Amino acid sequence: MSTVPSPEPTPVVAPNGEPDTALAARLPELREEYAALQARGLKLDLTRGKPSAEQLDLAEPLLGLPGEGVHTDDSGTDVRNYGGLDGLPQLRRIFAELLGVPVEQLLAQGNASLTLMYDTVVQALLFGVPGGERPWSREEQVTFVCPVPGYDRHFAICEELGIRMVTVPMTPDGPDAEAVAALVADDPTIKGMWVVPTYANPDGSVVSEAVARRLVSMPTAAPDFRIFWDNAYAVHHLTEHETKSANAIDLAAEAGNPDRVLMYASTSKVSFAGSGVAFVASSPANVAWFRKHLAIRSIGPDKVNQLRHALFFRDADGVREHMRKHREILAPKFRAVVEILTERLGDASVATWNEPEGGYFVSVDVVPGTASRVVELAKAAGIALTPAGATFPYGKDPLDRNIRLAPSMPPLDEVRVAMDGVATCILLAAAEAAASS
Amino acid sequence: MSTVPSPEPTPVVAPNGEPDTALAARLPELREEYAALQARGLKLDLTRGKPSAEQLDLAEPLLGLPGEGVHTDDSGTDVRNYGGLDGLPQLRRIFAELLGVPVEQLLAQGNASLTLMYDTVVQALLFGVPGGERPWSREEQVTFVCPVPGYDRHFAICEELGIRMVTVPMTPDGPDAEAVAALVADDPTIKGMWVVPTYANPDGSVVSEAVARRLVSMPTAAPDFRIFWDNAYAVHHLTEHETKSANAIDLAAEAGNPDRVLMYASTSKVSFAGSGVAFVASSPANVAWFRKHLAIRSIGPDKVNQLRHALFFRDADGVREHMRKHREILAPKFRAVVEILTERLGDASVATWNEPEGGYFVSVDVVPGTASRVVELAKAAGIALTPAGATFPYGKDPLDRNIRLAPSMPPLDEVRVAMDGVATCILLAAAEAAASS
Ligand SMILES: Cc1ncc(COP(=O)(O)O)c(C=O)c1O
Ligand SMILES: Cc1ncc(COP(=O)(O)O)c(C=O)c1O
Repeated sequence: MSTVPSPEPTPVVAPNGEPDTALAARLPELREEYAALQARGLKLDLTRGKPSAEQLDLAEPLLGLPGEGVHTDDSGTDVRNYGGLDGLPQLRRIFAELLGVPVEQLLAQGNASLTLMYDTVVQALLFGVPGGERPWSREEQVTFVCPVPGYDRHFAICEELGIRMVTVPMTPDGPDAEAVAALVADDPTIKGMWVVPTYANPDGSVVSEAVARRLVSMPTAAPDFRIFWDNAYAVHHLTEHETKSANAIDLAAEAGNPDRVLMYASTSKVSFAGSGVAFVASSPANVAWFRKHLAIRSIGPDKVNQLRHALFFRDADGVREHMRKHREILAPKFRAVVEILTERLGDASVATWNEPEGGYFVSVDVVPGTASRVVELAKAAGIALTPAGATFPYGKDPLDRNIRLAPSMPPLDEVRVAMDGVATCILLAAAEAAASS
Repeated sequence: MSTVPSPEPTPVVAPNGEPDTALAARLPELREEYAALQARGLKLDLTRGKPSAEQLDLAEPLLGLPGEGVHTDDSGTDVRNYGGLDGLPQLRRIFAELLGVPVEQLLAQGNASLTLMYDTVVQALLFGVPGGERPWSREEQVTFVCPVPGYDRHFAICEELGIRMVTVPMTPDGPDAEAVAALVADDPTIKGMWVVPTYANPDGSVVSEAVARRLVSMPTAAPDFRIFWDNAYAVHHLTEHETKSANAIDLAAEAGNPDRVLMYASTSKVSFAGSGVAFVASSPANVAWFRKHLAIRSIGPDKVNQLRHALFFRDADGVREHMRKHREILAPKFRAVVEILTERLGDASVATWNEPEGGYFVSVDVVPGTASRVVELAKAAGIALTPAGATFPYGKDPLDRNIRLAPSMPPLDEVRVAMDGVATCILLAAAEAAASS
């Protein structure tokens, strides 16, 4: 738990804290291996959390929907005309079921949940939120709790809007709830917190019921504290064990803090990335507040696209079925990442990583101080990785150790080749560090 | 030209300023006529500037586009995936030609130009604009010039965001440019101005080249004054004379104020209202500024919908041709409105109105002090009209005389019946006023 990360270098040691002489001794051999890797002239990319073309093909029928002559929803509304600010009930019902919220508390809007999150924070800054004393922009300072590693675009929103970020570590059960509780109890400038509750970006963790309960019930110094519950991967399972994330909206209401949680989701990685439908759900008071301001900037969302999605998925089971097809394509890629990391690094104690049961990322912690070097080595070998530090506020990982891997986009064989190269880079960087310490 | 309209009643007289005894004498006859109107039990609606179902049918093929298997644009980009923040070049080229701006200076975004306008004002408040000294929210006061009658949603944006509104009258050539110039020359709080340059909502006026030149070149006390050039009806002609509105972006650059104008447009009344594509265009500096902040809230717009539109229209001529089909449906309705007003009120000097050559509205000025009464009478006879005052800031018409008619939505025969009823209400309200003055 720290405030803005300091750019100071941290001591370069193996994860056990001791200088690693065995590893240092492997330096010449690893240099040769890396030279051979470079000589292959690869051009591979593990940077982007995007669906592959094969996944996008799963939703190809959307491109012909709703079809000529089909322009009314199941209540008879002509979706081609203005209106319907809340979004199409026919589609909201499907996602209300999937997200476990009452349909009246779920709005279906534009093509991106990121935009809905940004707009919520802007509304809070300009107008304040229900239960708040003033617009957040009138406070001396506004602070958000940022679990790390996390999603770079969340942090970018804070940076853009002048919101201070304090970090807490992620645990396998989600953000370190005790660390969060300690921060928010004393600091009235803390108005918000980012949470990716299901298959978090990047570490794949799922918020447990206990952590969720703690977060929604902990006392906060700010009366208008909000959790931005970004359920981007709610239905994005990689195994047969289809985790259901804790229902934070219900739990918050039970805990007497009904307005604490705003939930977001979208079909970006269900149908088409950037051409899907995004959702926001919350308490009746928050929804009314969001909607009131929304009504000034929008006459209504793209209902044709919403009908298109409703017709394609039919119902919540249709979405679940569709996500299993995504799983069939994605799971082997994620298995390959974990397999190769285990094979190549399992004995070397130069890295730790998660085995995600869903979502889009694998988070690797390498030898502290070497993440940037790994990314640099990989780049020079033709393997593009997400910049080191991207998973931290301001792009600065204070320990320079976290790397986010995104294996969804390349074909399986490329994932394998790239990951083998990444393992070499991780080892080489670790050996360099061990040799120089 | 006045600041916030006062709610004081204005003297009730006929437009020539004299008490109208002849009209007062017709009161009993008009009461009977109105009773007969009420007895018909109508249920008609002239409130909404929405396309009719018949117009929407013109774009019905969009509902099957791009079609299964078609998911790349003409440069090979897969439109189903993330990215392309500026919007699809293939579509931007079409609208760049129609709007007379370089394609690099035109962004294609979401489903509503209203949202783009709102977001621009919010960005200006939070971050300031190029050439400005500070975020507008840090100014003591921000004022916008609002030509009246105007578009209620522009005024609602100002009201929501705490922006003071000062009004200037509309003329047949657009806003009264001398009145605007006088205001902005002295008042550094004036940061912005709304203009609907082509077939204005509601009075149908088109900004002349001379007025445009004056607005883009007039000295302004604020160094960061912006004109929100809402070209919502750029291609929405009602006659064969297809007016081309002045190219404010070019003219502003010529005048040495390249960053003064932000232009907006959309296909809301070209394809589908709410499921179209919206555009913003401006100087390179403004576009870079808008884009920089956009990049934080969006990974990219709905490119599938943009491809859908590009395939449907093919090119700028495709749009022009399409708009002629709209014209065939709309023009008779507007002709009916003007014919009936002329027939019923032409001799009575109780109202003036415009004969629009494009756009969606007819603006009627009735006897001052009677607009609300006309709307009330119409309502009681089953004819819904836009609330009196809607075309003024805060919904308050200081003279209570302007009524906005929107004949696009109902079928032609209903427009006729409704307009005949409206004429009766205008006459009755005028006669009541004359009798009591
Ligand atoms: C945690 C998280 N939230 C939100 C998003 C973006 O979602 P959308 O496409 O709905 O804006 C992503 C995309 O990578 C993500 O990882
Ligand atoms: C002048 C004007 N601008 C903007 C709009 C709304 O446009 P959009 O649908 O692109 O938000 C309207 C709709 O009536 C309008 O009259």
